[in-house]
Amino acid sequence: MQFDSLDEIRAFCRDLPKGDAQMADAAARRQNSLTKPPGSLGRLEELAVWLARWQGRELPELRRVVICVFAGNHGIAARGVSAYPPAVTEQMVANFSASGAAINQIAALAGAELRVVPIELARPTRDFTVATAMDTDEFLAAVDIGYRTVRDDSDLLAVGEMGIANTTTAATLCAALLGGGAVRWAGRGTGIDDDGLDRKRATIDAALGLHRGLLDDPLQVAAALGGRELAAIAGAVLAARHHGIPVLLDGFVATSAVLPLARLAAGALDHCRAGHVSAESGHRELLRILGLDPLLDLDMRLGEASGAGIAILLIRAALSCHAGMATFAEAGVSGKD
Amino acid sequence: MQFDSLDEIRAFCRDLPKGDAQMADAAARRQNSLTKPPGSLGRLEELAVWLARWQGRELPELRRVVICVFAGNHGIAARGVSAYPPAVTEQMVANFSASGAAINQIAALAGAELRVVPIELARPTRDFTVATAMDTDEFLAAVDIGYRTVRDDSDLLAVGEMGIANTTTAATLCAALLGGGAVRWAGRGTGIDDDGLDRKRATIDAALGLHRGLLDDPLQVAAALGGRELAAIAGAVLAARHHGIPVLLDGFVATSAVLPLARLAAGALDHCRAGHVSAESGHRELLRILGLDPLLDLDMRLGEASGAGIAILLIRAALSCHAGMATFAEAGVSGKD
Repeated sequence: MQFDSLDEIRAFCRDLPKGDAQMADAAARRQNSLTKPPGSLGRLEELAVWLARWQGRELPELRRVVICVFAGNHGIAARGVSAYPPAVTEQMVANFSASGAAINQIAALAGAELRVVPIELARPTRDFTVATAMDTDEFLAAVDIGYRTVRDDSDLLAVGEMGIANTTTAATLCAALLGGGAVRWAGRGTGIDDDGLDRKRATIDAALGLHRGLLDDPLQVAAALGGRELAAIAGAVLAARHHGIPVLLDGFVATSAVLPLARLAAGALDHCRAGHVSAESGHRELLRILGLDPLLDLDMRLGEASGAGIAILLIRAALSCHAGMATFAEAGVSGKD
Repeated sequence: MQFDSLDEIRAFCRDLPKGDAQMADAAARRQNSLTKPPGSLGRLEELAVWLARWQGRELPELRRVVICVFAGNHGIAARGVSAYPPAVTEQMVANFSASGAAINQIAALAGAELRVVPIELARPTRDFTVATAMDTDEFLAAVDIGYRTVRDDSDLLAVGEMGIANTTTAATLCAALLGGGAVRWAGRGTGIDDDGLDRKRATIDAALGLHRGLLDDPLQVAAALGGRELAAIAGAVLAARHHGIPVLLDGFVATSAVLPLARLAAGALDHCRAGHVSAESGHRELLRILGLDPLLDLDMRLGEASGAGIAILLIRAALSCHAGMATFAEAGVSGKD
């Protein structure tokens, strides 16, 4: 196991690598020499510099791009908080294997390798309105699965999830760590009706009441009110930081999965960018709090890393300009008057 | 010539093709059968339906994607309204030919053919603070070049431009056709300082004064206050409508180029989407007025079709999901509870 205790995760987060400032500076200087008005490629310039910092190369590379989709099941699904039955989690994992899902098409287009990691689908987390979703050992095991899924030969990682009822889990984590209760964080997920939304809110508020004694501890919250696929995302994001791999986060659930890390250590998500902002209510607010400015805003709310997967295309665009454009000197183009 | 008079353009715009509503409906039905909650791919779904309407196919194709960049020079460049000397227009055309510009990298990544069309660079339009930029014949000739650049074998067209001083031209067109004067529409373009911005505003307001007698006529405005590359963009967009080719517009200049068409006929831009919203002040407001919701917001302000070129990647993502995903029935995934 990478982490044998919550304290080992806390220690890891106190001593995170800071990235390579020299390579970031070199990349920024290169951007200013290319045949365009300085700054005119906007976020594409910022992305090139960000990649340079975390890959530690003036000319970052995207030879191996990996999309990890973690899947888990949730005890609270039995409370009628989703428009779909819990069996859909496993059915969608089969759909991923058969290349029938959105993320399969997006991964192929983006030149990315798709790794789908179902985690104990036959053993949902416990209903966190009556117990802790996971005990510490279960939580650490899920973090470990995520951590070990990321290898040091990747140049860019996109993380996403599949898990019926997990927008309820995500909203509960946000409410537990950021306040505001269910009314601030619960959205319609896959498309529940008004009665379903009432059940979802009641579930969240019941959980907050039951676990109010541990809300000061981000990792205990992540175990007691989280999910296995969310814990795995947190583990994958920590592994990426260790290996110097920039990360694209997907939507509301994936972002809520790394919220506990951000609460543990300022800067814990510096190697991450938000691939998109989801239409799921709560995501925009969560990104704002985390200081993450999303790359895309396409009214998507599918999960399964679909938004982060599309954002890979923007990273490729940023790097092809960064590496392929001529400088003013090379092209014989006049500079500013 | 496709159009021998302004009246022929007016007649063309009164009788525009409406697209194939049946194929749009078929594409929308297909979207609702795919393995995702209905609507969860957001704008990707809308894009697939839009392509189906204009290509007239339930399963649209992107075999031949063309990016057209038109280049022109402007008499008003002599008034010090740009941070760069006018020679840069031709130098950048050479840079496009040598594959050194941003759009070359983006076109290659997007699998698009790049057509660069310089239009009489040695003969700038006249300074429109003292004369009309183009007479009717010069305007029609530029429209014709754009029209004939678009052939019926293309599946998607992205349009952009290169022309030192042309954000002044664009702002003048917007002020002439939408009101508000220079203060509403003039931005910093390639990055002029405060003095340059003052000169730019004075140029725009002088032009509005000189030509106030023709501001009711969108095509006369496009000739007297426009530019050759802008006229060519309008011609290309009309040709695309004729051939059933969906169009991605680039930034502030490219959008201002088609504003006269929108003023001539409601729905003239129904086959167009805004590839992005530029950081150039005025573009967001112009898109709002035209009812165009941009696909990307990346703080870019380069022109040369760079924003529209990146948006091609989103169109590819939309279509690969539309064509490649399994249906609920095919994948054996349960529907809503």
